[in-house]
Amino acid sequence: MEFQFLGSSSGTPTKTRNVTALALRADNARQWYLVDCGEGTQHRILSTSLSLASLRAIFITHVHGDHCYGLPGLLASAGMQNRTEPMLLAGPQAVRHFLDGVMQTTQLKLPYEIEFIDVEAMPTISALPDFRVQATALSHRVPTYAYSFTEQAVEARLDAVKLASANIPAGPLWGRIQRGEDVVLPDGRAVRASDYLLPLRKPRKIIVGGDNDTPGLLAHEARDADVLIHEATYTEAVLSKVGPGPQHSSAKRVAQFASEAKIRNLVLTHFSPRYQEQKGEGIAKGGLSLADIHTEEKVHYSGSLFLANDFECYLLDKAGVLSKLQSP
Amino acid sequence: MEFQFLGSSSGTPTKTRNVTALALRADNARQWYLVDCGEGTQHRILSTSLSLASLRAIFITHVHGDHCYGLPGLLASAGMQNRTEPMLLAGPQAVRHFLDGVMQTTQLKLPYEIEFIDVEAMPTISALPDFRVQATALSHRVPTYAYSFTEQAVEARLDAVKLASANIPAGPLWGRIQRGEDVVLPDGRAVRASDYLLPLRKPRKIIVGGDNDTPGLLAHEARDADVLIHEATYTEAVLSKVGPGPQHSSAKRVAQFASEAKIRNLVLTHFSPRYQEQKGEGIAKGGLSLADIHTEEKVHYSGSLFLANDFECYLLDKAGVLSKLQSP
Repeated sequence: MEFQFLGSSSGTPTKTRNVTALALRADNARQWYLVDCGEGTQHRILSTSLSLASLRAIFITHVHGDHCYGLPGLLASAGMQNRTEPMLLAGPQAVRHFLDGVMQTTQLKLPYEIEFIDVEAMPTISALPDFRVQATALSHRVPTYAYSFTEQAVEARLDAVKLASANIPAGPLWGRIQRGEDVVLPDGRAVRASDYLLPLRKPRKIIVGGDNDTPGLLAHEARDADVLIHEATYTEAVLSKVGPGPQHSSAKRVAQFASEAKIRNLVLTHFSPRYQEQKGEGIAKGGLSLADIHTEEKVHYSGSLFLANDFECYLLDKAGVLSKLQSP
Repeated sequence: MEFQFLGSSSGTPTKTRNVTALALRADNARQWYLVDCGEGTQHRILSTSLSLASLRAIFITHVHGDHCYGLPGLLASAGMQNRTEPMLLAGPQAVRHFLDGVMQTTQLKLPYEIEFIDVEAMPTISALPDFRVQATALSHRVPTYAYSFTEQAVEARLDAVKLASANIPAGPLWGRIQRGEDVVLPDGRAVRASDYLLPLRKPRKIIVGGDNDTPGLLAHEARDADVLIHEATYTEAVLSKVGPGPQHSSAKRVAQFASEAKIRNLVLTHFSPRYQEQKGEGIAKGGLSLADIHTEEKVHYSGSLFLANDFECYLLDKAGVLSKLQSP
């Protein structure tokens, strides 16, 4: 599984970071998935190898502008490229109201269908080819969700003992079952392939959080997750000054949760623009730097830690090891 | 007067051109004005010397997404920068409906006031410090306007003959009148400065068009204009293939109008992404290039002609000569 950051800034873009968007896809897949679509996401896509034509579905965590203002323009551009395949769009109900309003007031007509899934009513999405997607409610100023992407299929071997004890004769039928095909036996019995397959490994699972002041809400989802991508808008010191109003997380709070939940790989994103880059022209004396977030995180979390940068690609291999593929 | 292109592509961004936006300001002024605000305009601004803090007013030509989808994000970012000064926003009524809808559905609250002017009802805006702005209705699929920016004040000399014949005594009063100040004479008469000033030159005037298939609608406004900035989405050959449905202009039609109207300086923009750049990796055989638009324009227009590129700055001097200040 691969993902690429198209934006990693909170609230407003900076010269180096756009507002939130993340591309995700299965190994070597053509189709890909987008989580959040801040303004300028379609511009970011122009500088990657991704294309709107192979975008299968969009998941919006919540209706705040820095997570969804790029949606109407991206959908319009897909239309101008003559897309006809439907686009799945999942999010809280407010996302639909936002998009419907914009389409109506700006006379935006699309040559393809938007299949909207209200994740408040239907949090499990099983219809996609690559992943089962689970929405988990978070705590923020508006209804906000995390999306967990779990591989739909993993390599498996036949459970030969179970097949034999069920009197399913060895032969071409076993081959079809191994390929995941449900079959009907000569004696009329229907056999569900998954009942006779032993997965060779755990399906990989990546959680992509939305804005959230309570990482612990992901405890259940995190039990079998390989990667958590979560906002760390501030350090704890700044969060204390800002106060709880904006309902964001500090690096420390995410670190403590990830540590307790034994999450192997943690990627932080959605940094307040007050934190300046670590490289480049240097930080003014007393100024805040992304290094502060990294340092605070490291105190409370000893797993594999990354701070996202725009355009960075990450690969999660089948052993659950996360590595950065390329830096901008 | 100076202006800078922040976007020059029609419909959808390309790697080198964003969708429409133009910055405009008076000589050496701190405050500036924005015409149109396609998605990603605030990102473009980050790469210029302009700041949202000194943006005085925004004029939207029409409600199509490539001219207004950047508006909510730009206004939100100005708010996050703690703007308190009101922002003047002018456009057709539909622009207000678009913005109101987005603000409501996405819970966008601004710490400053939006002073909306519906140019369909009130096409003349005299309240701004630098320019008198006139909106002129164009012909497109939705209500669309051009904005003419005319200098509010030009250098003037005293009309000494008129002052003498009105028995206004020479002295410090004349100095105040020359500075444009209305005064009250010792005998109680009120004197309006503009009645006794002779402008030393014509005020400069720049017309910024919106999408428009009938350049002739600008004939009245163009009589005393120094510059026309107008869309030339296609060449005539492509416009003939596309048909009249999109209601855009060809280079030829704009050229013929500018020629008839004796417009001294013409800047074309809003190019269809099908026209590839003239520089760089070269055009595929039989492919369309921006050179085609330039060539077509030159056949029908012999004035000072420019094709816009993103980030280009133009200076209109007091003699009405337009020159390009810097190339990207």
